[in-house]
Amino acid sequence: MNKPTIIAFDADDTLWVNETIFTSTQEKCKDILSGYISPELIEEKVYETERRNLRHFGYGIKGFVLSMIETAIELSEGKVSAKEIQDIIGLGKEMITHPVRLLNQVEETIRLLSEDFELMIITKGDLFDQESKIARSGLAGFFKRIEIISEKDKSSYGRVMLRNDINVKDLLMVGNSLKSDILPICELGGRAVHIPFHTTWVLEQISHHKLAHIQYDELATITQLPAYLKQNF
Amino acid sequence: MNKPTIIAFDADDTLWVNETIFTSTQEKCKDILSGYISPELIEEKVYETERRNLRHFGYGIKGFVLSMIETAIELSEGKVSAKEIQDIIGLGKEMITHPVRLLNQVEETIRLLSEDFELMIITKGDLFDQESKIARSGLAGFFKRIEIISEKDKSSYGRVMLRNDINVKDLLMVGNSLKSDILPICELGGRAVHIPFHTTWVLEQISHHKLAHIQYDELATITQLPAYLKQNF
Repeated sequence: MNKPTIIAFDADDTLWVNETIFTSTQEKCKDILSGYISPELIEEKVYETERRNLRHFGYGIKGFVLSMIETAIELSEGKVSAKEIQDIIGLGKEMITHPVRLLNQVEETIRLLSEDFELMIITKGDLFDQESKIARSGLAGFFKRIEIISEKDKSSYGRVMLRNDINVKDLLMVGNSLKSDILPICELGGRAVHIPFHTTWVLEQISHHKLAHIQYDELATITQLPAYLKQNF
Repeated sequence: MNKPTIIAFDADDTLWVNETIFTSTQEKCKDILSGYISPELIEEKVYETERRNLRHFGYGIKGFVLSMIETAIELSEGKVSAKEIQDIIGLGKEMITHPVRLLNQVEETIRLLSEDFELMIITKGDLFDQESKIARSGLAGFFKRIEIISEKDKSSYGRVMLRNDINVKDLLMVGNSLKSDILPICELGGRAVHIPFHTTWVLEQISHHKLAHIQYDELATITQLPAYLKQNF
């Protein structure tokens, strides 16, 4: 098999912590609303509202905040106060300015890989949130190309390849989500390495039978990537 | 002067109506809040809140809705009800699903220009909102490249040129905003045609002295563009 020349990384929960910030914000939201609503109900309902609102809001912090507000209004039967809604908006602002916490040894690994490969980021989400995180991560300089897209599926990856004039056979995709990072690239004929993050967002889960026809490798941490590449290509 | 080979269009208020939708939503918001707050105060304050929140939310509908909610809470001194806040979120959803109304004869003009030029969209805003509007506009097929960026200034246009391997001297930019569409392109050495839209958002206004060192042409409507190009190049 030819050696990949381009390594593309997912960003959230592959290079830096993301899902944990959403989860901890949801916890704070539960506290704010504890006078009206049981915590379990909030969790279930926020997810449902988010899913329903995806077609209106897409992915990202602002849509998440709007979904939290809607959930609070609905579950409290309109009793939630303006002050509490302001507090929920405040949680969103905290999320946006939250320091970017790189996963363990990401910087060293990216630096090392940048000596032998062309590196790229392909990330899904809100343009503003993602650009801000990339800038604050301090890693931008290592990546020749940065693609922020609103959905990660076979056709959107296909458009990214076309736009950048990349043959997918030259690419290795690295990410934490089987559904968003691994499956579509493998279906396009590319290669992928799965590095699971400890929490996986429920909308990112995929049943295993869908994976039967594709092959990918799994590593425990990003630090194993340089050795993996040496050994396999 | 060489003939431009690529024509890049701004989208909002250049190809289709946008600002009017924000303005009419603000009017509806004033109605919702009329029990607490005078309409003039809302208008002034929403703008102030939006400007303050730009660094948190960027441009787009979701940030606008969050700023309207904040303003409502602040100006009503916390008296605004959950029901009224839900109505404001509903206004946001209406905006997102609002039909895309092309400006007069845009489709015919774009079709005509696509026969002689490579066309491109360079638009600023929320990735999700913009992609959705481009898809719903029915125009996507005419544009070889679509760039959705979070800010339109000299350096962001410079990155767009680099990423697409475009010499700015081959480009003509067409847009309704002097600040976002005309000035930065001219400063990079490109050419630009200004087509004013009847409303210009206050954050898009620029004082005239900044324009003293650059040259650009102004047309009243996009329909004049084919004749303008024939005459000048």
